[in-house]
Amino acid sequence: MSPLAAARVLAEEVRAVEDVPPFTRSSVDGFAVRAQDVRAADDRNPVRLSVAGEVLMGGRGPTTELQSGEAVRVPTGGWLPPGATGVVKKEDCRDLGSAIEVLDGEGSEEHITQRGADVRAGDVLRRRGDVLTAASVGMLSGAGVADLLVFVTPKVGLLVTGDEIVSPGAPLRDGEVRDINSLSLAGALRAMGFEPQAYERVPDRRDAFERALARALSECDAVVISGGSSVGERDYTPEIVAAAGKPGVIVHGVRAKPGRPTMLAIVGQKPVIGLPGNPVSALVMLETLGKPILLRLYDKDSTTLPIRARLQQRINLEPDIEHLVPVRLERTDAGVDATPLLGTSAQMHILGFADALVDVPAGSGPIEAGTLIDAIPLSHTSSLR
Amino acid sequence: MSPLAAARVLAEEVRAVEDVPPFTRSSVDGFAVRAQDVRAADDRNPVRLSVAGEVLMGGRGPTTELQSGEAVRVPTGGWLPPGATGVVKKEDCRDLGSAIEVLDGEGSEEHITQRGADVRAGDVLRRRGDVLTAASVGMLSGAGVADLLVFVTPKVGLLVTGDEIVSPGAPLRDGEVRDINSLSLAGALRAMGFEPQAYERVPDRRDAFERALARALSECDAVVISGGSSVGERDYTPEIVAAAGKPGVIVHGVRAKPGRPTMLAIVGQKPVIGLPGNPVSALVMLETLGKPILLRLYDKDSTTLPIRARLQQRINLEPDIEHLVPVRLERTDAGVDATPLLGTSAQMHILGFADALVDVPAGSGPIEAGTLIDAIPLSHTSSLR
Repeated sequence: MSPLAAARVLAEEVRAVEDVPPFTRSSVDGFAVRAQDVRAADDRNPVRLSVAGEVLMGGRGPTTELQSGEAVRVPTGGWLPPGATGVVKKEDCRDLGSAIEVLDGEGSEEHITQRGADVRAGDVLRRRGDVLTAASVGMLSGAGVADLLVFVTPKVGLLVTGDEIVSPGAPLRDGEVRDINSLSLAGALRAMGFEPQAYERVPDRRDAFERALARALSECDAVVISGGSSVGERDYTPEIVAAAGKPGVIVHGVRAKPGRPTMLAIVGQKPVIGLPGNPVSALVMLETLGKPILLRLYDKDSTTLPIRARLQQRINLEPDIEHLVPVRLERTDAGVDATPLLGTSAQMHILGFADALVDVPAGSGPIEAGTLIDAIPLSHTSSLR
Repeated sequence: MSPLAAARVLAEEVRAVEDVPPFTRSSVDGFAVRAQDVRAADDRNPVRLSVAGEVLMGGRGPTTELQSGEAVRVPTGGWLPPGATGVVKKEDCRDLGSAIEVLDGEGSEEHITQRGADVRAGDVLRRRGDVLTAASVGMLSGAGVADLLVFVTPKVGLLVTGDEIVSPGAPLRDGEVRDINSLSLAGALRAMGFEPQAYERVPDRRDAFERALARALSECDAVVISGGSSVGERDYTPEIVAAAGKPGVIVHGVRAKPGRPTMLAIVGQKPVIGLPGNPVSALVMLETLGKPILLRLYDKDSTTLPIRARLQQRINLEPDIEHLVPVRLERTDAGVDATPLLGTSAQMHILGFADALVDVPAGSGPIEAGTLIDAIPLSHTSSLR
């Protein structure tokens, strides 16, 4: 097993291979004894026992049965010798080297952890569809599990359309803009648990688009397209997706801002998600509509946990449509502050600083500064922050 | 630039290479015009203009100056021809092919986005120490940035001590237990943004421990040790770390549960973090004390965002010490529920299900079920959930 198993999704139920703990052991540093020998011991009536040996961590120590009148030195977590029914804490004894005097022997049975007290061999520890964490991989190792069957990370093809889009580094002519979506959408897909598969930028030609989609559908488990799904004359994504196979386009156009021209389709068994070309709209729609659909490739429902934060500026938007408002989050002594990032010419600002989205349903009134809101965090590739 | 830049930490200030947008452009689908030609147009007094050409996405279109009485077809985001000072929306015109009739020409100047309106070449976009997100990598690409200088991911050596510890798959004899920390701590370090460097398990022998520590210190930027830092006779971590170099041990023992025997040291310039051997204690201390120290390798402060959740069971703990209570988080329709995971024999359960920690300071009274608490999420390698 490898620590890299963390963040993979289990494809099988996992059962404990061994009991945990795998042997009956002491839960304190002290002396293994027969409990009835020491039950009445206190500092006025100490009980003297001879030290018959020592258990070391990782070793068994004496294997002969512990007799009445005897004690064996044991460390916390150490193996309990046969015949022992209690452990007296080190600090409750006077240590004379070859013998001890027990000054408090009450409750010595409680310092023993029975084999299998935590987990029994055969117990179900994880189920199919569970996302492995670092700690849970450690737990499974602790129960003797040496191998795990995990889902292959689904491959999501990413088609970025647009004749005007140029990679950074290449010369930029009038009318051309730099590529944003190839980077931001691929990074978000990776953070969500998928393997993004990049393709050549798709020129605004029907035949080139058809070929690129066919190839992505044959090589990937799902396809995400950016651009080409709005209502402009050259935006033939829905037509081409519909022609690629059944059942075809399910949704074209959503009542949410940003993201209205989003398209959702299924070709064969594969989801095809058509995002707007605008980088903020594309990212917001991938997070809110795309992620729950793509997680179904793992047979999973999305359970992203919201962050409660205090709104720093009033939000007042047209009430006739749902809004997904990008916010910047900052931790303060009092909690978390959320600053809304609004304004159409602030695309770059939003991409640079958004940490989360606030969902404002259609029909909502203004939300005043100071209100506590739930922010849905954008997907991140690590907990580094 | 690669989407893999996401989750790296910037080692330099980054400035925009180009203006964004890189040219003055239309913000609607429509016709570029001279604004003064159409200002007075309405459906009773339409203005007729001849169509002098078309701008395509990615292309310049007509380069001769737009004259009074002329219009040029432009898409959203399209390059604005020289001489044009406004854009009339498609839906505010009657399109006659070689000519148009403008039915509403007011405010045509507002449909133009000036070159550099969003970002100017030379603007500072990110600072040293910023963690890159998928979206911010996209943003930098959008401003023409082709290369980024990022921190090398710090290497953290992981020394797991204990003669009793055996990897899963190998035979387990009486007194031996399975390795947990090699997996859970390495996974957590990776999720925090570090490269864990695994070493052979360290036997409980002073010379072997000294050699392992010297090697890890020479090869890594920091060292994390699990086990060997409590007060038992064979727990000589503090002595060995102190002998390894100055300034040495800074902290040995913390007033927090779990995690009391934690040790913090500096050898040369390198942090050395001695965690308890108990897997839950080790993970909790790595998250709470270790992470902020290790993030200093990036010149960063930790800014983990807490999750507000409703406590599902009363927490009532000894008030004389600070407690870090592992909790399981579950999203519900009403928000997030936090279930405390308590009990000493429930190690495996805690590792398997903990999502976050709740910090209960010393001196706190009981916390009733139903209380809203702040849970600090454990580090995860992805947003897959």
